Amino acid sequence: MNVAGRPMRTIWPAADGAAVEIIDQTRLPHAFVVARLGTVEEAAHAIRAMLVRGAPLIGATAAWGVWLALQQDPADANLARAHALLLATRPTAVNLRWALDRCRAHLAPLPPAARIAAARELAMLVCEEDVNLNRGIAAAGLPLLEAIARRKGAGAVVNVLTHCNAGWLATVDVGTATAPIYAAHAAGLKVHVWVDETRPRNQGASLTAWELGQAGVPHTVIADNAGGHLMQHGRVDLVIVGTDRTTATGDVCNKVGTYLKALAAHDNGVPFYVAAPSPSIDWALRDGVREIPIEERDAREVSHLAGRLADGTVATVALLPEGSRAANPAFDVTAARLITGLITERGVCAANAAGLRGLFPEKAG
Amino acid sequence: MNVAGRPMRTIWPAADGAAVEIIDQTRLPHAFVVARLGTVEEAAHAIRAMLVRGAPLIGATAAWGVWLALQQDPADANLARAHALLLATRPTAVNLRWALDRCRAHLAPLPPAARIAAARELAMLVCEEDVNLNRGIAAAGLPLLEAIARRKGAGAVVNVLTHCNAGWLATVDVGTATAPIYAAHAAGLKVHVWVDETRPRNQGASLTAWELGQAGVPHTVIADNAGGHLMQHGRVDLVIVGTDRTTATGDVCNKVGTYLKALAAHDNGVPFYVAAPSPSIDWALRDGVREIPIEERDAREVSHLAGRLADGTVATVALLPEGSRAANPAFDVTAARLITGLITERGVCAANAAGLRGLFPEKAG
Repeated sequence: MNVAGRPMRTIWPAADGAAVEIIDQTRLPHAFVVARLGTVEEAAHAIRAMLVRGAPLIGATAAWGVWLALQQDPADANLARAHALLLATRPTAVNLRWALDRCRAHLAPLPPAARIAAARELAMLVCEEDVNLNRGIAAAGLPLLEAIARRKGAGAVVNVLTHCNAGWLATVDVGTATAPIYAAHAAGLKVHVWVDETRPRNQGASLTAWELGQAGVPHTVIADNAGGHLMQHGRVDLVIVGTDRTTATGDVCNKVGTYLKALAAHDNGVPFYVAAPSPSIDWALRDGVREIPIEERDAREVSHLAGRLADGTVATVALLPEGSRAANPAFDVTAARLITGLITERGVCAANAAGLRGLFPEKAG
Repeated sequence: MNVAGRPMRTIWPAADGAAVEIIDQTRLPHAFVVARLGTVEEAAHAIRAMLVRGAPLIGATAAWGVWLALQQDPADANLARAHALLLATRPTAVNLRWALDRCRAHLAPLPPAARIAAARELAMLVCEEDVNLNRGIAAAGLPLLEAIARRKGAGAVVNVLTHCNAGWLATVDVGTATAPIYAAHAAGLKVHVWVDETRPRNQGASLTAWELGQAGVPHTVIADNAGGHLMQHGRVDLVIVGTDRTTATGDVCNKVGTYLKALAAHDNGVPFYVAAPSPSIDWALRDGVREIPIEERDAREVSHLAGRLADGTVATVALLPEGSRAANPAFDVTAARLITGLITERGVCAANAAGLRGLFPEKAG
């Protein structure tokens, strides 16, 4: 996607061939800063501290992290160490394990001397594949928006609500939940996006609003509390969110608060879709609420918030009374029964085992 | 309730007899500041700018505002002007109209010369009545918490989730949703409160957390997105919220986001109670979603947020990218079908017309 009119991705090899560069997403929307990751430790820190975030981009960064590790030492022990170090950064998204297991399976059989080049090639491939998956989601999801536009009639605006950021910043490019939105916008549909600000880290207000703005897609930021009211009054035609882990039965684990929007959509007859590239699917799981580990993040993400002061500098303010504590579960699980459909790179399916099996017969256990 | 160990209310006549004093709630939790309201215009501004807020306290402030107006000119025209000025400040809470209509009905038949003293007496009475209503809610709601404590067994903590601030700061004293919590805490029950921060104005993080802290009630502030996850995992025993307007059929209009918590409570079998003093009941309404006007507040409440900088000073930061706009509906409606019961000053009833009629037979139309 374009930043200030120039095409960018979220992660790419540095020009000197010795490192990886990323958009530091902790600085958005107030500053656009590129960060350099020169070691696997820096890659792990970038994931843990959320300079990069979003399940697909976490997976891609981990693949690059393996390359960074092997550049320093391509021996077995270091490959194992890099796998463990990167896997420990975030517990919820399954793409991370998916990418790391794939790297290990591909690289471990090779002689150490061949691993560095192979790791680089694999990281490039993981990134290319991610972009292609997202293009598949765009193609699969576009007809959903087109059907709403047809139903509402000429000139009507299609109002999509999204939670958190499952945009191109959450991936290598294009995005998952935003992919059909960008496709619809490019196809000339009138699309407007309700952007949940997505407390506590405000990835909606900071990242989704920023990337929609860069792409010229009309959007309005709302408090996470507002979506139910908008749905009650017919102001949301469609919800599309991302997923950090999808069970084989169609349960979806995504940013905390997604579940509340799914309940409201269900209660108001608003279609609720999840953009789910296949690497987000954990084929071993059948019960999302019981089986998916929910990351508990630093309470400071709730008690403090950064923004721009009037002079343009960025400052962090404390929100709570002295002595009050906070808790910060980062994800929740939306049961398949609340989901209208999953938008995968192979098409849209029902959020259940049969639906997923139909699109991915090779994965059926 | 106590502030720094000293008993306070949210509104009281100034010692010099010429004005009213309030706690300026826009300054909490970062500073405790008393503001003086000397004119009806200042009272209207205090309501509109939310120096005072909460349906019961808005009603009480309006009653004092009528007195302030009549002090300057007790003639019919000025009584009508004060009524209109104060009524226009906030559209959603019905207590405001209830208090103003009551003042007009009581004062208009009196000779102007007698109105000033009568208006003062009536404002005092509205305040005393509010405190007594809330004590009734405390007594009616306490058994709900006691029953949970008994069921969970000796030493177990009763976890209550609340949204926004329906605490003593939303009333003259005691609070509505917090009244049973304070009663349980005083009775020696182990109570812990999950405090929704309640974006965009953060009345939970700013006010509810502050007053629970002053009262020594254990509490944890969470993002509004987190409640559904906590309920899925059995970490909420009971939800209690307030109401700005209750229909005769038991629908409840409260701070935006309440509806989402009611859906989650319903989906997880968590009891969802609304503390509803009778002045919040609009006996003329039967369909909350269709009939209750929802205030749309300044988008700046979403796009900007105030907090404490590291040096202790309070600053406002901008959260959105340049060029992104925001919307700010302030309330939503929770249908009666999602509400376990209404806690009124006369006892707990089902959230439906028969339940309310049973407790308030004199209101049955």
